[in-house]
Amino acid sequence: MPIFYTPTLTFSSKELTISNSEFKHIKNTLRKKIGDILVTTNGKGLLAECVITDISARSMILEVQATSTKEKSHPHIALAFSLLKQHNELIIEKCTELGIYEFFPFFAERNVKTSLSTHQFERLEKVAIAAIKQCDSVHLPKIHKPLAFKKLLENLSQNYYPVLAWEEENRQGLHEVLEYANKDICLIVGPEGGFEKQEVDFAKEHSTQIVSLGNHILRAETAAITIAANTIFYQLERDSAFY
Amino acid sequence: MPIFYTPTLTFSSKELTISNSEFKHIKNTLRKKIGDILVTTNGKGLLAECVITDISARSMILEVQATSTKEKSHPHIALAFSLLKQHNELIIEKCTELGIYEFFPFFAERNVKTSLSTHQFERLEKVAIAAIKQCDSVHLPKIHKPLAFKKLLENLSQNYYPVLAWEEENRQGLHEVLEYANKDICLIVGPEGGFEKQEVDFAKEHSTQIVSLGNHILRAETAAITIAANTIFYQLERDSAFY
Repeated sequence: MPIFYTPTLTFSSKELTISNSEFKHIKNTLRKKIGDILVTTNGKGLLAECVITDISARSMILEVQATSTKEKSHPHIALAFSLLKQHNELIIEKCTELGIYEFFPFFAERNVKTSLSTHQFERLEKVAIAAIKQCDSVHLPKIHKPLAFKKLLENLSQNYYPVLAWEEENRQGLHEVLEYANKDICLIVGPEGGFEKQEVDFAKEHSTQIVSLGNHILRAETAAITIAANTIFYQLERDSAFY
Repeated sequence: MPIFYTPTLTFSSKELTISNSEFKHIKNTLRKKIGDILVTTNGKGLLAECVITDISARSMILEVQATSTKEKSHPHIALAFSLLKQHNELIIEKCTELGIYEFFPFFAERNVKTSLSTHQFERLEKVAIAAIKQCDSVHLPKIHKPLAFKKLLENLSQNYYPVLAWEEENRQGLHEVLEYANKDICLIVGPEGGFEKQEVDFAKEHSTQIVSLGNHILRAETAAITIAANTIFYQLERDSAFY
């Protein structure tokens, strides 16, 4: 049974109204009835056990019976990724499943894709919601509005420990830099054609660790999923309390 | 510049003929001419530097100038995966890029997909060829014909160290079992609905290590990519000679 997404849920919610696609999923696909129990989340770590008290043509009412919270493991792991011509949805889907906390899409020098429409942005948000339901997560990652790479990096380096994957780095591995992370981590992957050297130099000047993802040249979206999977699992293996 | 796939290449090859899609790619897309240099591989670790000596309407002749070999890192890592309704190509593409050595598709009890047509099988092989060209690999993974899960496991457990990811395992992590691998490793992931308990018990009876991929429930294809990425990187990080 999936966890349903109800962004209006707060600690003091007594009742929730569900409409639109979530309503259709619960009523038509799962055929839930009055009296049935559902679990919902606000995507910010708050869970509610609810009972369906009313169903009308276009919405249903849930009564909140109990709430609980689920803490996200620390440090949080963010992903900054260059917007690709294709496969942005694949990055959001897979990395949300894996547990990425927030996304920073950006435009680098060699970007083939140079803009993101409102519709495309909203699609990414929908993909993230579907992914947290799939994996029973109660943390909906925030997807930030895209920025130019250098502008983004100036902001990031204040609050994150930035780790950038570069195919021309052949010395420094991922685990050895993760070991020294002293704040939330932001993983960074470049566009289809890779970062330009001056972009990597700029990143180094802004406290960024440059790492290799091995001796194969990975597609951009594979690099994103790979660095996310390896960082999340490094954290899992290190902190046995997660098991 | 990609490495081209020429399965007929051997140590003693003096000349290679290229036709079909590889020919079209080199002639029409890359606009290569007589006298240009190309690098090709037989997908089994052998590389050849070649010069184009003749181009006709449907094929071209390459003269082999030098050959070299590239060893695959040990232990080899194989992936056995339940054939999915969708996303089998995604598994082959991403895991080939990452460096999986061979694939064992199978049918488990809860499989939604219960057959694989010759056309679908050939598509998987084409995806693998495209992926090794993309990532400059000289090792084309072998894709075996699908088997029933239990039949496959009986064969596998003779020659591999089998490691199965199960969402109901919550104790044993991946790295701790990889540490004890004493032969080639075969990673195993189940179908959309997960393995049945009796299948996991059968695997345990056949020397299989059962591991957790963390506290999120991953889609089947995400689990395949995640366990492959983490195993390959565990090997990379352990064996600094790979850098």
